[in-house]
Amino acid sequence: MKTIYSPTHLRHAGHWEVAGGTLVPGFEKPIRAEYVRSRAEAVGLGPILPPSSFTLDAALRVHAADYVEFLGKAWDMWAATGRHTTALPMTWPVKGLRNDRRPESIDALLGFYSLDAGAGFQAGTWDAIRSSYETALTAATLVKGGERAAFALCRPPGHHAGSAFCGGYCYINNAAVAAQWFLDQGAGRVAVLDVDYHHGNGTQEIFYGRSDVLVVNIHGDPATEYPFFLGYADETGAGAGEGFNLNLPLPWGTDWTDWGAALEAGCRRVADYAPDVVVVSLGVDTFERDPISHFRLTTADYPKIGARIEKLGLPTLFVMEGGYAVEEIGVNAVGVLEGFEGR
Amino acid sequence: MKTIYSPTHLRHAGHWEVAGGTLVPGFEKPIRAEYVRSRAEAVGLGPILPPSSFTLDAALRVHAADYVEFLGKAWDMWAATGRHTTALPMTWPVKGLRNDRRPESIDALLGFYSLDAGAGFQAGTWDAIRSSYETALTAATLVKGGERAAFALCRPPGHHAGSAFCGGYCYINNAAVAAQWFLDQGAGRVAVLDVDYHHGNGTQEIFYGRSDVLVVNIHGDPATEYPFFLGYADETGAGAGEGFNLNLPLPWGTDWTDWGAALEAGCRRVADYAPDVVVVSLGVDTFERDPISHFRLTTADYPKIGARIEKLGLPTLFVMEGGYAVEEIGVNAVGVLEGFEGR
Ligand SMILES: [Zn+2]
Ligand SMILES: [Zn+2]
Repeated sequence: MKTIYSPTHLRHAGHWEVAGGTLVPGFEKPIRAEYVRSRAEAVGLGPILPPSSFTLDAALRVHAADYVEFLGKAWDMWAATGRHTTALPMTWPVKGLRNDRRPESIDALLGFYSLDAGAGFQAGTWDAIRSSYETALTAATLVKGGERAAFALCRPPGHHAGSAFCGGYCYINNAAVAAQWFLDQGAGRVAVLDVDYHHGNGTQEIFYGRSDVLVVNIHGDPATEYPFFLGYADETGAGAGEGFNLNLPLPWGTDWTDWGAALEAGCRRVADYAPDVVVVSLGVDTFERDPISHFRLTTADYPKIGARIEKLGLPTLFVMEGGYAVEEIGVNAVGVLEGFEGR
Repeated sequence: MKTIYSPTHLRHAGHWEVAGGTLVPGFEKPIRAEYVRSRAEAVGLGPILPPSSFTLDAALRVHAADYVEFLGKAWDMWAATGRHTTALPMTWPVKGLRNDRRPESIDALLGFYSLDAGAGFQAGTWDAIRSSYETALTAATLVKGGERAAFALCRPPGHHAGSAFCGGYCYINNAAVAAQWFLDQGAGRVAVLDVDYHHGNGTQEIFYGRSDVLVVNIHGDPATEYPFFLGYADETGAGAGEGFNLNLPLPWGTDWTDWGAALEAGCRRVADYAPDVVVVSLGVDTFERDPISHFRLTTADYPKIGARIEKLGLPTLFVMEGGYAVEEIGVNAVGVLEGFEGR
């Protein structure tokens, strides 16, 4: 399997986030992608190729234009106020306030376009966002071109980013961009299978009213787990999208027994849908030693995930999402891909 | 004029807040109220009396019961997770996520019930909130009992707190509680005049659909100033409340010339409304050297505010809100009250 990777992700570095009532260095660190790349090299997964250039047109198919414009200028606006800290929001337009009127100041815009204080901006953040986006599209192009599967080693990740908000380390929703791109290239139906520990709220929001993209999520129960405000089992889609969103929330402490059963249910739903292509939001923060998560998958479980997805017999794009246990992230993420390849 | 004050506010201390992309000690410090109390004593404003006890019934007239319950238990829930940092939220149910389903974990509840990361909880926060609430009601009782005016030296402040959210250093909306209490005690109409630098978004939200409380706000333009997502001039009330909300946003750098003109306009609207009582949300962060604000009122301007309000000829309850320049907060806040008394 070919991997698409760009060192440009390294420019998104040094950011802090709010967690546990304090400010901490971002868990979403550059070394994450480097561990995955090293492991792909070490096991000889296949060629590691750079992304091609893409305009932002494909991003604008799933994100609001003003939001994408904001992503591109957020750091410059922040720096223009003389601050050198991570650009982080501090106020949000929750219920009881307005979200119909775009404010002017950067502090306000950061809150207007985010769901948390977990997707900050540094000087190189936009470069990395754009590179991550191109990485997803380049890998999608390989699958469109006939490869059975490809791996987009995206960083920053994307699945928490909605049509007009960032959050949870995510800015452009790479998996959603790729799914829409497949449709725009002629696919009739696309399935997104999100196996990250956290609910892919952005992907769900983007496709919630549509039947041409099935979204299946296996994740920590939002009653007790980030992103808290989406991901319940009763969210099944709306309007034309009714029945095309499947959430499989699981409690803290879930191990392979129940997680694997949820994967089986999710894959059956995907198979019933009979999509032309599957986009896998590949997070490995389901790992038992992940520092911010609470499932109990072991390193031996990850190849089983890949093997089950392979059984779908469909063209498959893997898009990197979360996973924060550093060294093990490489073994586990690449383990999924090795399992897919039947090694 | 009598002042109601309780040292219980001192228990709300040591909290941090997110500002400028970093975590800083809360600008809303205990010393603020102490400077005001000292100044009231120094100029002999009048007796300084402790608050009486009140049940939470009056709070439940303007706040959701589940929200008030949350305020009372937030710190204990946080501390039960083993953390000693300020209890601060980290994710918010913005548009694209759900706010109809109350989550279970404390991290989620903090976001569910707030608009920012600026109203954190420490061990003594609830005691101070409750004491501040009782301070407002005790002062209201004096006005109901025939005093021309009374001063509720509330801390924490209240005007950013809405029916079901805290934020901006505010938890229970003391001014809104007092306004509703006056109605419940027989008043036919109450006006709230908010002269704090920041828009009193909570007070507006609570009374937006009602004609029995007129809300007038003079404040920094939300396009560039906190709370950003409410406070525009086109917000005039809804339904039965149409025409009973007046916002007078002003740009950074506003001095007495324009601020005084806005006060004049606000007072004329109050006079037209002919309320039985006026509740003044008294913030003095309009001061030229306030560390977080951008108006240019001078110490000499504050007595003019009080004098103009006095000209309304109405029973008046002053409720302390913001003001962060520490020492000057006492001189300026008490200056308003001295101006009211014609000294
Ligand atoms: Zn995750
Ligand atoms: Zn203020």
